[in-house]
Amino acid sequence: MKELKELMEYRSDVRVVDATLRDGGLVNDFYFTDDFVKDLYEANIKAGVDYMELGYKASKEMFDENKFGKWKFCNEDDIRAVVGDNATDLKLAVMADVGRCDYKKDIVNRSDSAIDLIRVATYVSTIPGAVDMIEDAAKKGYEVSCNIMAISNVQEGDLKVALDILGKTPVDVFYIVDSFGSLYPEQIARIADVYREFAAKYNKKIGIHAHNNQQLAFANTIEAVGDGVDWLDGTYASMGRGAGNYAMELLLGFLRNPKYNIFPVLQFIEKHMGKLREQGVVWGYDLQYLMTGLLNQHPRTAIQFTKDGRTDYSEFYKEVVAMD
Amino acid sequence: MKELKELMEYRSDVRVVDATLRDGGLVNDFYFTDDFVKDLYEANIKAGVDYMELGYKASKEMFDENKFGKWKFCNEDDIRAVVGDNATDLKLAVMADVGRCDYKKDIVNRSDSAIDLIRVATYVSTIPGAVDMIEDAAKKGYEVSCNIMAISNVQEGDLKVALDILGKTPVDVFYIVDSFGSLYPEQIARIADVYREFAAKYNKKIGIHAHNNQQLAFANTIEAVGDGVDWLDGTYASMGRGAGNYAMELLLGFLRNPKYNIFPVLQFIEKHMGKLREQGVVWGYDLQYLMTGLLNQHPRTAIQFTKDGRTDYSEFYKEVVAMD
Repeated sequence: MKELKELMEYRSDVRVVDATLRDGGLVNDFYFTDDFVKDLYEANIKAGVDYMELGYKASKEMFDENKFGKWKFCNEDDIRAVVGDNATDLKLAVMADVGRCDYKKDIVNRSDSAIDLIRVATYVSTIPGAVDMIEDAAKKGYEVSCNIMAISNVQEGDLKVALDILGKTPVDVFYIVDSFGSLYPEQIARIADVYREFAAKYNKKIGIHAHNNQQLAFANTIEAVGDGVDWLDGTYASMGRGAGNYAMELLLGFLRNPKYNIFPVLQFIEKHMGKLREQGVVWGYDLQYLMTGLLNQHPRTAIQFTKDGRTDYSEFYKEVVAMD
Repeated sequence: MKELKELMEYRSDVRVVDATLRDGGLVNDFYFTDDFVKDLYEANIKAGVDYMELGYKASKEMFDENKFGKWKFCNEDDIRAVVGDNATDLKLAVMADVGRCDYKKDIVNRSDSAIDLIRVATYVSTIPGAVDMIEDAAKKGYEVSCNIMAISNVQEGDLKVALDILGKTPVDVFYIVDSFGSLYPEQIARIADVYREFAAKYNKKIGIHAHNNQQLAFANTIEAVGDGVDWLDGTYASMGRGAGNYAMELLLGFLRNPKYNIFPVLQFIEKHMGKLREQGVVWGYDLQYLMTGLLNQHPRTAIQFTKDGRTDYSEFYKEVVAMD
């Protein structure tokens, strides 16, 4: 359902989601300076970004608060210190992983929170856990999305069952998540077809969260927009786990809705992202991520390769090809 | 005419063209070591690459041989020192620019040359010059392609006239060249439609040469393959002018024809490309190239920004937006 003529027009249903703190936090253990977070918040407002994902609501039973920056936990006080009462058009989101979030305790009623949207992250195998979290979040008054991760490993039959279950919950948005960065635009188009069927049946929206292992995060996202996908996750300068995500600056250059503005994004990157790289924070396309993407594998081996400072790419290729 | 099912099959008409020395030479003035060129030649053979572009046939009247590496001129002796009699399946190509090549003198008969393919590079405005070069090359026995540069600035009506003129020449391949890296996959699909009309009429092949300003070089290339485009220019590790080209390692991972092999490409990159970067050779996606791509401008201002070591991206944005 690509809409050729629409490169000049726009759909007002599109929602741009900045996932820099959350997906980017995975490469620096969420140790962002207050200055960084405040400037990012201001840049998002000026750029017309619709949602800013602040980080995770991670279980404090499972993760030691002293071993991570505060955006892994997103305590209400820490959020308020940045956004005050957030009297802006920018909505705030956190991610909650099935099995790694004490949501009954740690997610309070929306009326007592600065957060607007709970993003439930699940594998197809943990859908019942996701359903419970979705219902909890909706009951507390939040908007809710559900990110179905590692979709490139999911059989179409199972995906349909999952979407049919999720369709009956109060979730607002179904997400396509290419966790391994292994999908090509043609495959995105096919997966979007499946999602559209259930989105139409249950009156839900569709989102996409792409990874850049094959330098296709942006291409897959704009393919998806042409296939009826509205919610688009990106990060500033592609900052994110492994090969990173699509770059916010690419998307804001592409979107035709005049509410979006690329300039504050360029300013933010100029001020902060080069500095992060100089400090040794590493992310973005490299051969090891291409390989795990090609082979449709979780990037954990490639992340380890990066951490170890290895550059023996051909040796690594032999390792991952043999991994089964 | 995207062929969804074909992600599992392949078209034997596809031709992979390695443009590393030619487009990459634009960022290091063609100063490649003999070791680099020899290893690249061997890697291409092992990887199943179909054509290797060695460089330019640049006019020695216009360019001083002492100010550039030898691959700007591609003297027959220099080629022979690497390839001998090239008793392999890898074919050899050079580029000849309209107005910057003494082709009558510098391009000898194919029977006296190691070169198989002359790639004539032209703007739409210099098509008559291209026609003369195409006829000269064909008469001398070469395969001939014609690269129509800066296609994103060409009106469809003019493009049709150009293709109709070129169709009547002995040229074998029409190339789509996104010199500014400004096109989106949907636009590639539309342009490929126009090319296909004339390729069918005159029995020609179609090629694509993409740039990575918006991280779409690979995506645009695989879009084009789905639209009947067969000749695909890439470079190792994306090495090329400005934001570079699509990465050969991405394409060889994508293509399903078992004649192609990604491993020698990984080995070559591991051995040579990190070293080039350490020596200060700079190429690849960065914000300044995104901006000229978005604005559909020649990247020369962005290349200067890079050479000057500037990182004041937002200032640069103001400069290029105002440039008219």
